[in-house]
Amino acid sequence: MDLKEKNKKGIELYKRAKEIIPGGTQLLSKRPEMFLPNLWPSYYQKAKGCFVWDLDGNKYLDFSYMGIGACILGYSDDDVNKAVKGAIDNASMNTLNCYEEVELAELLLKIHPWAGMVRYARTGGESMAVAIRIARAFSGKDKVAFCGYHGWADWYLSANLADDKNLDGHLLAGLLPNGVPRGLLGTMLPFHFNNIEELEKIVAQNKDIGVIVMEPMKFQQEESGFLAKVRELADKINAVLIFDEITVGFRFNIGGAHLKLGINPDIAVFAKGISNGFPMGAIIGKQEIMQSAQTSFISSTYWTERIGPTAAIATILKMEKENVPEYLEKTGLEIKKGLLEMAKKHNINLHIEGFPAMLHIAFDYEKSQAVRTLYTQEMLKKGILASSGIYVSFAFQDEHVEEFLKVIDNVFSVLNKAIAENKVEQMLEGPVAHSSFQRLN
Amino acid sequence: MDLKEKNKKGIELYKRAKEIIPGGTQLLSKRPEMFLPNLWPSYYQKAKGCFVWDLDGNKYLDFSYMGIGACILGYSDDDVNKAVKGAIDNASMNTLNCYEEVELAELLLKIHPWAGMVRYARTGGESMAVAIRIARAFSGKDKVAFCGYHGWADWYLSANLADDKNLDGHLLAGLLPNGVPRGLLGTMLPFHFNNIEELEKIVAQNKDIGVIVMEPMKFQQEESGFLAKVRELADKINAVLIFDEITVGFRFNIGGAHLKLGINPDIAVFAKGISNGFPMGAIIGKQEIMQSAQTSFISSTYWTERIGPTAAIATILKMEKENVPEYLEKTGLEIKKGLLEMAKKHNINLHIEGFPAMLHIAFDYEKSQAVRTLYTQEMLKKGILASSGIYVSFAFQDEHVEEFLKVIDNVFSVLNKAIAENKVEQMLEGPVAHSSFQRLN
Repeated sequence: MDLKEKNKKGIELYKRAKEIIPGGTQLLSKRPEMFLPNLWPSYYQKAKGCFVWDLDGNKYLDFSYMGIGACILGYSDDDVNKAVKGAIDNASMNTLNCYEEVELAELLLKIHPWAGMVRYARTGGESMAVAIRIARAFSGKDKVAFCGYHGWADWYLSANLADDKNLDGHLLAGLLPNGVPRGLLGTMLPFHFNNIEELEKIVAQNKDIGVIVMEPMKFQQEESGFLAKVRELADKINAVLIFDEITVGFRFNIGGAHLKLGINPDIAVFAKGISNGFPMGAIIGKQEIMQSAQTSFISSTYWTERIGPTAAIATILKMEKENVPEYLEKTGLEIKKGLLEMAKKHNINLHIEGFPAMLHIAFDYEKSQAVRTLYTQEMLKKGILASSGIYVSFAFQDEHVEEFLKVIDNVFSVLNKAIAENKVEQMLEGPVAHSSFQRLN
Repeated sequence: MDLKEKNKKGIELYKRAKEIIPGGTQLLSKRPEMFLPNLWPSYYQKAKGCFVWDLDGNKYLDFSYMGIGACILGYSDDDVNKAVKGAIDNASMNTLNCYEEVELAELLLKIHPWAGMVRYARTGGESMAVAIRIARAFSGKDKVAFCGYHGWADWYLSANLADDKNLDGHLLAGLLPNGVPRGLLGTMLPFHFNNIEELEKIVAQNKDIGVIVMEPMKFQQEESGFLAKVRELADKINAVLIFDEITVGFRFNIGGAHLKLGINPDIAVFAKGISNGFPMGAIIGKQEIMQSAQTSFISSTYWTERIGPTAAIATILKMEKENVPEYLEKTGLEIKKGLLEMAKKHNINLHIEGFPAMLHIAFDYEKSQAVRTLYTQEMLKKGILASSGIYVSFAFQDEHVEEFLKVIDNVFSVLNKAIAENKVEQMLEGPVAHSSFQRLN
């Protein structure tokens, strides 16, 4: 099968895109080069549930990122779409405010009884920037101790500025901070998940930390009461503790993962999990802290449109009604079990990280990225979008899991042969996929 | 007529909103206190064309801000809605990219032949932040000379940081910079529109200005070749010239106002004008400058969703087909003429700023804000949403303009009497409207 021919329209359009869009796409994780350079279908015509139709009319089962984690209920969910279309019919924007933003606030506060107030934005990146602004305004301090990835904005990317300009970008691999003002140098202090000693040391050495920001979990889960210790440390130094729940919130359980983990932050931020693909972000927090928003200027026209809160309400109510997180866990466990069995059967060295609703396959080979690229290539030939991540969706039915594992059976057999004969790169019909940020020509 | 009774549901809901949303709304310009404190309907149930129905079932003609400038075609435009609903039916989000973002780029570049590349965001604030990031990355310099308002983000609000912390906020009235890192102090250098000497002085005193950012016009238009002189100065010091076209773009003419004014920037930013109320932002620029986006990390999941570009394409095509800016100009001129006639008839001291498609009524009285509040109150009683701004919409038909002027005739007569008898404040059924940022309790 000639993938170049099969995905002709999509490949051609992406070539054009790179001429008129710097970097080709709006999100690094959607770059065709991150999946299968030169051969990835790149664009979709339509999608429904866990199926995707590309520009060339090919139909795929998406067992990769499901909208990069934004479509937990599946693509084009009927219930969410119905609510959104109703909002559009009644006008999605106005000079007056939409009442749905108050309804959504009530819903989020009911789910998170520790929180007292809510603000909104429309993307994850700006939601985090709003949270940081409020936290800094409350604490009166600029320094932020942080763990993990929190977006593209200046406050965060300044972590990658170095005293020596030539070292810019060394901290977070591939995240270049060009264009971030050097005055922000030194405001961001990194620590690693589950390393409380490191955070304690940072806090001891910096008296002016006003904010601690992290995800409560992701591919790793906490050990030895890490979150409780972070919480205690934040209280000790009067720092605002922010949990970034953009990826894990409403996927691990209804609401922030912190509810299930038993540790409340001062501010929690939601985006991808809450609105099934419609732009929305929510910042919730304790009342006395959130009121600091009023001592700063945080205001944007599109934060007032109606689709975001409407989609979030419909998504959350459906998640509650159908107990979606429980379904994701059950389904993810089946996928994980099946994958491990197939790996054993075909002698593929891999391990699986993450939690059941968000799996990460790590191929344990010296040339692991080449193996992963071949995996993506062979899965694509068999009609499945696949990469290292499997973001489990409510749209995954038993038959889809069975189909996926049937194809895995076949593809792992191909992989095993290629690895045994040292022919992985030879079998690739294009370059090895990028594993991080790279300039495109 | 008892406005408290008439707008009961909306007023009640806003009271609750202030308890759980700091500041009550997501946008300062949508705060009920900015229009008519305690009495404004605050929330809408539905809207169509230039009509709005509030939570209490009252129907209003909107001759105020039409979605704070975001709904040039009118509320719930059938053509844009149809395109958006089609995008939703076919899935608004995916693991693959939406081809509409390439189509929109082609369209924007066709309208702006000086530009070579396009990036997107979903709000005006973050679109400006993307533009500044790219410009700083290209120039390698952090300092920005600026004129006017460009949103809530750190890069901009840092203009309001002062050497003496007690003076924070003095520059841009009411925009408090709490929570903005002090390391950004001194990066923002303000100049005034039409004052080239001021900008020349700033440039002479600061060798490290990499960016000049401004709106090409707004309530003022350029005089004495101001824009050409700014362009020349930017070229002389190798600074990236950014035009913020969020408010005026696609309102003054098809595309950026700079096209009609005859001066091209290096980067232009669009948002409110391009997508009739659906969240969207576009950053267009010269190829060599836009490619600097690849030397920084600028990436966000919701920037990849499909509604934004779909709405923008449908909006722009309709604007071109119907020659909307010309209609706005013609209609705005009629409104302006009628308003001035009525002011003369009733002896109301006012002048009108702005351009025909975006009028600003300034009441020339010592207590102008009280007069403006009474104006809003009396217009509301007669079924019209009105404030100091009139954002002309394609949905304004002759009959709506006639209705507006008929009510103006009546309300100006009331105002005239109240002013003559010095009873403006006495006639107000609530407090005088806020004219800037104020903390709400």
